[in-house]
Amino acid sequence: MAKKEEFVKEIADIDEDFAKWYTDIVIKTELADYTDTKGCIAIKPYGYAIWENIQNYADKLFKETGIKNVYFPLLIPESLLQKEKDHVEGFAPEVAFVTEAGGEVLEEKMCIRPTSETMFSTLYSKWLKSWRDLPMEYNQWCSVLRWEKETRPFLRSREFLWQEGHTIHETKEEAMERTLKMLEIYESIIEELLAIPVLKGKKTEKEKFSGAEETYTVETLTRDGRALQSGTSHYFGQNFTKPFEVKFQNREGKEEYAYQTSWGISTRLMGAVIMAHGDNRGLKLPPKLAPIQVRIIPIAMHKEGVLEKAEELKKELEKDFRIDIDDRDQVSPGFKFNDCELKGIPVRIEMGPRDIENGECIVVRRDTFEKIPVKLEELNSKLKDILEDIQVSMYKMCEKRLEEKTQTATTMEEFEKRINENQGYIKAMWCGNKECEDKIKEVTGAHSRCIPFEQENISDKCVCCGKPASKMVVWGRQY
Amino acid sequence: MAKKEEFVKEIADIDEDFAKWYTDIVIKTELADYTDTKGCIAIKPYGYAIWENIQNYADKLFKETGIKNVYFPLLIPESLLQKEKDHVEGFAPEVAFVTEAGGEVLEEKMCIRPTSETMFSTLYSKWLKSWRDLPMEYNQWCSVLRWEKETRPFLRSREFLWQEGHTIHETKEEAMERTLKMLEIYESIIEELLAIPVLKGKKTEKEKFSGAEETYTVETLTRDGRALQSGTSHYFGQNFTKPFEVKFQNREGKEEYAYQTSWGISTRLMGAVIMAHGDNRGLKLPPKLAPIQVRIIPIAMHKEGVLEKAEELKKELEKDFRIDIDDRDQVSPGFKFNDCELKGIPVRIEMGPRDIENGECIVVRRDTFEKIPVKLEELNSKLKDILEDIQVSMYKMCEKRLEEKTQTATTMEEFEKRINENQGYIKAMWCGNKECEDKIKEVTGAHSRCIPFEQENISDKCVCCGKPASKMVVWGRQY
Repeated sequence: MAKKEEFVKEIADIDEDFAKWYTDIVIKTELADYTDTKGCIAIKPYGYAIWENIQNYADKLFKETGIKNVYFPLLIPESLLQKEKDHVEGFAPEVAFVTEAGGEVLEEKMCIRPTSETMFSTLYSKWLKSWRDLPMEYNQWCSVLRWEKETRPFLRSREFLWQEGHTIHETKEEAMERTLKMLEIYESIIEELLAIPVLKGKKTEKEKFSGAEETYTVETLTRDGRALQSGTSHYFGQNFTKPFEVKFQNREGKEEYAYQTSWGISTRLMGAVIMAHGDNRGLKLPPKLAPIQVRIIPIAMHKEGVLEKAEELKKELEKDFRIDIDDRDQVSPGFKFNDCELKGIPVRIEMGPRDIENGECIVVRRDTFEKIPVKLEELNSKLKDILEDIQVSMYKMCEKRLEEKTQTATTMEEFEKRINENQGYIKAMWCGNKECEDKIKEVTGAHSRCIPFEQENISDKCVCCGKPASKMVVWGRQY
Repeated sequence: MAKKEEFVKEIADIDEDFAKWYTDIVIKTELADYTDTKGCIAIKPYGYAIWENIQNYADKLFKETGIKNVYFPLLIPESLLQKEKDHVEGFAPEVAFVTEAGGEVLEEKMCIRPTSETMFSTLYSKWLKSWRDLPMEYNQWCSVLRWEKETRPFLRSREFLWQEGHTIHETKEEAMERTLKMLEIYESIIEELLAIPVLKGKKTEKEKFSGAEETYTVETLTRDGRALQSGTSHYFGQNFTKPFEVKFQNREGKEEYAYQTSWGISTRLMGAVIMAHGDNRGLKLPPKLAPIQVRIIPIAMHKEGVLEKAEELKKELEKDFRIDIDDRDQVSPGFKFNDCELKGIPVRIEMGPRDIENGECIVVRRDTFEKIPVKLEELNSKLKDILEDIQVSMYKMCEKRLEEKTQTATTMEEFEKRINENQGYIKAMWCGNKECEDKIKEVTGAHSRCIPFEQENISDKCVCCGKPASKMVVWGRQY
């Protein structure tokens, strides 16, 4: 028999170099890879399978609330982008332009969409006639381009995959309801599927989306205590519908401009999962999200009946679980255990000739490394329980970290000290002035994450200027 | 009560102006619309729901044969596109270039992918080491751009949605097997889901894909007797793997270049469905494909119990059928019947107070307009039978047309006369020379569609030059 390959751990230590650990995970678990197109990644099968699970989960929730999918053009004439002043100011520096096509220089430059408010608004203005046509609630799954200076796989890529939903409504109230409804859906995707607790709230004026009236956000916290904006939902009022003339005849027969929203989540969520759950053994995927939930690793595979039994087990289990067998013969079982942990597969089943004789197997949890002997006839129901328990435990582990890393500050000294010692979130009162927000950023490196829906009264004064303050803001350094 | 709107038939006559009929259908049934981005359409919810059904059906078949999904960059550095000579010659004239981004002029122009052989080959060359890594069989669902001069919704658009599969293999035989396997899958998608019979065969040298060794095709025939290339599968041999250095250590420990394939279907299939099945009442969708399979149209909707009964029926049926109710109160039942036919919904259910009293309803078929009284307790099973029958009948109708519109020719006179009288396919022998292929195109306007797998011996001589010929080619005018 040929000599078996030994597993070489090639990932950086998570506590020594978190940034390198992160990119090691992305590359070594084959989630994605760098390409010859600078700043753009190739999402590989294992990474894309995770994204497909997010897509399917989200798409179903969207459709249940009446959202319909569409596909609108990638290219947007430059003149359209320029119709809304704040929006163009926000996005113009990051836009990529097509200037030549079909062997000719174009008369008008075309933007590759950085986001599609302008395209949706233009088309809605063409289709909208009467209040009876409202609401129009469309979404597209697509890629967008933003020419970032510094990139990092999944977290900040020049091209990324996302969904962008755009809706128009008869009234302010309906539009606001949709804005908040989507935030709720994002919350449930991130908490229930990705097993990460979120911080929910409203962005400050400074941090809101270019062109929005109000931006709402769900934020997650990474293992190293940084904030990650993980989903946003915007209320536009009539900011776009006026310049784009998205108007309708209302119930009184008068002309009125529609009220608009947009909202999106992206492949950035992949980064959130890696950074929230991973450890020194590698990726750690919540069972609901994992493309492979269970991997069977046969021991003494060449012995009669072992591989056959593994195949039999797989067939029995595959109607209830996403399951595979690692039947490679050029690597040792030890290599396979390590590889299975590296890939973040929630549970592995070890099974050798003696186990088969005894009618049992060993189930090993990725989260606790606990080894659980299970009778084969009970395997199906036990696996269900174990996977459910892992999903819950992973959420709780993040919740605990969130609690530990959420502190308060009433003075700038406290603020600095606590964020330097512990990273994480700082809850502090804010007077509402941009000057203080800028100064906090300058001194501590922390951006305002949001004004949480759940307010607390930390003190009566702004942490920065000491003037009276009634709003509690959560601050944090960000990715 | 307000006056009800009357239905105004706004589509051109299918036999008088097929081209206008086609675009009328696209616009009036709200499959898609024109946009401010010239040559690019917006796919609207009804059109996109059809595409989603095609995607889901195809994706499942792909995955069953081991294909894995990925997502690779939209932008391809110009130097990569130029590595394979025939390929760049074929695509360069249609490419759109990004030359400015992030406020700067780029050092190297970037192509927006017209197809991704070059990107896949580059990445495969990075990942492939040993024969143990083979095959690599990846696919992506994405949009591509080709700067066409003349466009037509779905059939030829500057941007279109498609899937592009790219695989590499250890041997020629395996690659060829994958090439033909995909053609089979395309055949089953088009015949079983879209209810359109296909013509299957190999493209001539002149018509094959730029850079391919061999191109295989499935062709469909439109109502007006034109050919539509509906799916292609290419065998590349080592044409790309050599310049891109996609090589591996083979079982003998020697370096070898991999064998490659690619294959794709696109939103062009939407055009095939419209043009194969539609009629003067509008679109006609095969039940398996239709986003709405059954529509309930309540009669005398304001009468007590009617709408309630319709809702009750919908609830009972929606676990087995894609079903909705047209409960608009501003339009008449007649309007709704016409609208339901225009949208191509396979079956409508008419139900008024008297029907409810009698415990029955009227099922109306979109394909035959037959009105079938059905007892409510039998509705579920009857609907199943009727929808299955519609699916089969629609296929048969196209099959009959295909037979009627497939003729033979042994001389150029015969060829011209028959194609002018009847359009459709002409089967004729060909000597294999490009000169004859060019001349046939010049004289008759017909391109070679393919060299069918099922050969017949029409005569011994080339229809054009009269020299000995052993290959039968199918010819046709195309969209």
